[in-house]
Amino acid sequence: MDFASDNMAGAAPEILEAIGVAAQARASAYAADDWTRRAEAGLSEVFERPVAAFLVATGTGANALALGAVTPPWGAVFCHEEAHVIDDECGAPEMFAGGAKLVGVPGYGAKLTPASVAETLERFPFGSIKTVQPAALSISQANEAGLVYSPEEVAELGALAHANGMALHMDGARFANALAACGATPAAMTWRSGVDVLSFGATKNGAVACEAVVFFDPARAKAFGHQRKRGGHLLSKGKFLGAQMDAYLQDGLWLRLAARANASAAKLAAGLIATPGFRLAFPCEANEVFAIGPSARFAALREAGARFYDWTTRALAADGAPNRRETLVRLVCSFDTREEEIAKFLSLAAGGAR
Amino acid sequence: MDFASDNMAGAAPEILEAIGVAAQARASAYAADDWTRRAEAGLSEVFERPVAAFLVATGTGANALALGAVTPPWGAVFCHEEAHVIDDECGAPEMFAGGAKLVGVPGYGAKLTPASVAETLERFPFGSIKTVQPAALSISQANEAGLVYSPEEVAELGALAHANGMALHMDGARFANALAACGATPAAMTWRSGVDVLSFGATKNGAVACEAVVFFDPARAKAFGHQRKRGGHLLSKGKFLGAQMDAYLQDGLWLRLAARANASAAKLAAGLIATPGFRLAFPCEANEVFAIGPSARFAALREAGARFYDWTTRALAADGAPNRRETLVRLVCSFDTREEEIAKFLSLAAGGAR
Amino acid sequence: MDFASDNMAGAAPEILEAIGVAAQARASAYAADDWTRRAEAGLSEVFERPVAAFLVATGTGANALALGAVTPPWGAVFCHEEAHVIDDECGAPEMFAGGAKLVGVPGYGAKLTPASVAETLERFPFGSIKTVQPAALSISQANEAGLVYSPEEVAELGALAHANGMALHMDGARFANALAACGATPAAMTWRSGVDVLSFGATKNGAVACEAVVFFDPARAKAFGHQRKRGGHLLSKGKFLGAQMDAYLQDGLWLRLAARANASAAKLAAGLIATPGFRLAFPCEANEVFAIGPSARFAALREAGARFYDWTTRALAADGAPNRRETLVRLVCSFDTREEEIAKFLSLAAGGAR
Amino acid sequence: MDFASDNMAGAAPEILEAIGVAAQARASAYAADDWTRRAEAGLSEVFERPVAAFLVATGTGANALALGAVTPPWGAVFCHEEAHVIDDECGAPEMFAGGAKLVGVPGYGAKLTPASVAETLERFPFGSIKTVQPAALSISQANEAGLVYSPEEVAELGALAHANGMALHMDGARFANALAACGATPAAMTWRSGVDVLSFGATKNGAVACEAVVFFDPARAKAFGHQRKRGGHLLSKGKFLGAQMDAYLQDGLWLRLAARANASAAKLAAGLIATPGFRLAFPCEANEVFAIGPSARFAALREAGARFYDWTTRALAADGAPNRRETLVRLVCSFDTREEEIAKFLSLAAGGAR
Repeated sequence: MDFASDNMAGAAPEILEAIGVAAQARASAYAADDWTRRAEAGLSEVFERPVAAFLVATGTGANALALGAVTPPWGAVFCHEEAHVIDDECGAPEMFAGGAKLVGVPGYGAKLTPASVAETLERFPFGSIKTVQPAALSISQANEAGLVYSPEEVAELGALAHANGMALHMDGARFANALAACGATPAAMTWRSGVDVLSFGATKNGAVACEAVVFFDPARAKAFGHQRKRGGHLLSKGKFLGAQMDAYLQDGLWLRLAARANASAAKLAAGLIATPGFRLAFPCEANEVFAIGPSARFAALREAGARFYDWTTRALAADGAPNRRETLVRLVCSFDTREEEIAKFLSLAAGGAR
Repeated sequence: MDFASDNMAGAAPEILEAIGVAAQARASAYAADDWTRRAEAGLSEVFERPVAAFLVATGTGANALALGAVTPPWGAVFCHEEAHVIDDECGAPEMFAGGAKLVGVPGYGAKLTPASVAETLERFPFGSIKTVQPAALSISQANEAGLVYSPEEVAELGALAHANGMALHMDGARFANALAACGATPAAMTWRSGVDVLSFGATKNGAVACEAVVFFDPARAKAFGHQRKRGGHLLSKGKFLGAQMDAYLQDGLWLRLAARANASAAKLAAGLIATPGFRLAFPCEANEVFAIGPSARFAALREAGARFYDWTTRALAADGAPNRRETLVRLVCSFDTREEEIAKFLSLAAGGAR
Repeated sequence: MDFASDNMAGAAPEILEAIGVAAQARASAYAADDWTRRAEAGLSEVFERPVAAFLVATGTGANALALGAVTPPWGAVFCHEEAHVIDDECGAPEMFAGGAKLVGVPGYGAKLTPASVAETLERFPFGSIKTVQPAALSISQANEAGLVYSPEEVAELGALAHANGMALHMDGARFANALAACGATPAAMTWRSGVDVLSFGATKNGAVACEAVVFFDPARAKAFGHQRKRGGHLLSKGKFLGAQMDAYLQDGLWLRLAARANASAAKLAAGLIATPGFRLAFPCEANEVFAIGPSARFAALREAGARFYDWTTRALAADGAPNRRETLVRLVCSFDTREEEIAKFLSLAAGGAR
Repeated sequence: MDFASDNMAGAAPEILEAIGVAAQARASAYAADDWTRRAEAGLSEVFERPVAAFLVATGTGANALALGAVTPPWGAVFCHEEAHVIDDECGAPEMFAGGAKLVGVPGYGAKLTPASVAETLERFPFGSIKTVQPAALSISQANEAGLVYSPEEVAELGALAHANGMALHMDGARFANALAACGATPAAMTWRSGVDVLSFGATKNGAVACEAVVFFDPARAKAFGHQRKRGGHLLSKGKFLGAQMDAYLQDGLWLRLAARANASAAKLAAGLIATPGFRLAFPCEANEVFAIGPSARFAALREAGARFYDWTTRALAADGAPNRRETLVRLVCSFDTREEEIAKFLSLAAGGAR
């Protein structure tokens, strides 16, 4: 019963196999190999346009490099006040953007809205030398409350961003889960809705360690090769990233893995909703379940071996906070979550014997 | 006939297998897993003292983080003027050290000597506010000319560094090759000779992507967890680094792989020395051969499919430069260099038919 | 009728004269001159202990250097969400602290309280590698709402800061006004209450361009000479800063100038309170008056030549916001505000003819 | 007999007077005042084209901001290996350029030549991701050996810079001395010869503390207001910089002051050349004299009260080094050097009684 994080999952067999094949071969170093070239071509195909894509080994690296590429040191990045980039990356975006400022915007469900962003923007008058200047808007897809922006919502934020001279960045650590959830095409979810640069995650969804920074306008990526190298994020044996991404994109593996994780989460969420005493803090839209339930029951689950995290968030609905006998927890499903884990968890949540 | 770089090699089967095992398991994220713990313990054992070790995926990341940890923004790092850290990392050490200065020191064979370092130090008077302050000395082992510092040489530089308030960093991207070459113990080559922080490489020597930053005084690493995370170099599925390093250290695999690469290089070097028209630019001490020979012969080798790089260096002996019909090339052997590659190369070098 | 800013004032004759005297003399460059030495000694005397003091030409420079000296790149600086350091310095503290994070804390009257700081601190768990680590607490004295922290309030914040491993910084751009207002000694207001580093302002209070960064524990300032030089903030003809600060401290000039500005503000505030239709947004405690009044009346004042800024703040009391016919304005008095400016302003505010 | 530095001089009466006038007036803060506007207009007039000019208080600030404005973090700035920007600014340019690399180029008389720059550039192949990319060329005028680049020499370097995608920066801390020495127009010496950005110094030449960063293509300065503010280099009472620069440019004061300093240096140089035992290390072209003479004689001069620095340089002609009984010293004249100082120095140098 392991629902602590999709970072604790293993790796998909198809991806492991690709690593094994690459391990038998000699290949040019520093991302000049055929696997990387195939991965890049695969991303252009997936997004239905020529993109500039750069593989790295970590999500924090991808986000920090992406934001650093579109934000000058005197710039501001706007994001939800509980976004991963502002809260969980130990200041990496600030480092890669040369000391820029990340500005948190409040809002239900870890979601930005045009109104909340516009209100925050008012504190950063254009051209004022006293104030850092708006440079980027960053949204997480799926986000930190497990919610998914629709392409229409993304497009509204994209329009606002561009009207204010900002780039739109999407932290897609769970991009596949978001797409699998809402059925939009990769293109509709990104550049057709104004996304300028995407952190395209694979690690949480079955890879060993692989993310892509995707620029939809390759001209914006002119210096990115240097930025990646300078950040220490260019792998010498780059083929091992290329092989992972190439396998991940083959025949829709990425969407299949995500759909599997989402289905597990949906089952878990439905089961909890049907269990007296439990309710959801946010709708379950992708592969994460934010559940509120009796603290004692969660304690019993932990004793029975279940792994998950207590959660704190300011992004609840006004009347949605747990009462003092309740706890809010986060339950994450991954591509390798097993049916019996869910069944056992639900049975125990319902008060069943172990 | 692939002698272009040990970065173009594959991966050792033992390491691949360890990745495969880790892929079947759930494990705590962010380096809190058992594989990582075993790797850390393994490094402490190898170095015969408790070390603070941090795994990362790239050598540039390891070097930049290590130098950043011991160098303030107003500090200077002294290294050979052709060191990897000053020439080939696109300013990563400068970035991670907040804009510190890397200062190149000239010298034969890419080697620092106490005299050359001392002479350079004179330009950086202690306490002068106009001048960045000496903070670190960095040496490569094996170095950029394929040479190996003896423990005695390291100790002399360590004493000089410490006498001037500098930390001694060793860029050990080819540390295993250096050790296998000279037979010193890891402890003798490092902390017993004054090394404070080591970039312990595995990638070039059979890993997929794995390096360790090793602090011999764990107190010096207090903030390093934050520095690594902030640099985007903490892998979420950290077990995959742990598994590589753990396998690498098991039963001396790392030294066996390095010995194999060194033996290949020795054979290649000996063969070239015995071939009329060829000579070595530097003695072959580890897994790299710097050879000078007829340009036409190298061209023919390339046409026959051999891969290697022409080389430029200011670190030759006074009378060692190629004449105008000659070319200096670098030939690198790795753990998976095959006997027949060497034999064919030597045969062609000697003017034999393909 | 110039109430726009104390930055728009002239300079005190005593300070100008000191500059004139220094201009006749040759003196060692880079702050090694006798004027600077006297200024440093004067600050030690004023604060009743040996301090390490460094003169610079700007308040933003002083704040950014001071915060940079006590905050690592992976650190967080806590301050009021409308503090000058977070809102009005275009990211200078972030730059000088290598990309650290400034975290805004809400609260009435631009004031931090132990409770509001403690609540914010909970989001930054000690030791978590995902989170930047608390490094400094910064308070403005007098603050952005014109309010003054009492020594007791400072001491409470100092205790909280130190208990959480943070340094306490005081942005004293209007330090003299704060002291003149509450009568505390410089020592009681700073190090006796836990202040570690102070930006000691003179510019707004009669100097041409002069601020001091004061470390109450000189050991903390060991690298500061390099940090100042590296920031470009060491004046070559340092005597001209020394001369200003020396004159500023002579015979209590600094407190006399501040008392004059405060008295003007008090008179202006009292007059407005007595004028039907006007009220204060915050008590007038130093040299700034935040007044709410009929928008039409302020428009008329402007037409009559009065200079002042409309103000926006989230730090009002719950019931304190202007209604839709009112405007909130900031009126600043300086050492050279003239009686007749105040009288004329009040007369016009009361609806009198110009 | 004060020849230690032009930084030890006083200030010109005309400039002091302007400060005094500004001190009587209220003026908009942050460089939005009339004095600053006049100074900016004055610079456009002097350079015969509309320039974007920004006043700051220090030369290091001016250089660091200027180089930071034209150099990305992954860029390289080429300069003479003994340039002030690389040797004497404690890494300020690196800080303001986000960790860029300064690369020293050797050469006689602290001068860059197209050949020496081109040779160094070869080590930084265009487009290589391993290597920082050439971004700026920086020359000092007059330079660190007291020599002056002719407009033709500047133009050659400008052409080389532009052909390699680099901006040309001129460190004009002694720009007035250089112009006064060679008679070229400010325009010919700068933008007409390819200079993109100039640090235009006034401090060493009679100001209290004032330098301008001058962009000849104002479009290049779009973000510079933010960069200056963020660096803490925007003075709140900006009128005091404006007043200095305005007075400095009035009626050619700046060139008259420089001509006076140059004439003093010429007299001193001529006198030393005529004194047996002395010779010049470099021709005296501006206001600095680099003299080699008997160590005992220099010691006697110091005992008699003369102030000057012993000098070390690698930029001597091959046969120009002092022998073991000789010392190389630097003697700097300023606008307020007095006839009798020179006369006394020469008399003592010649062995005369004090």
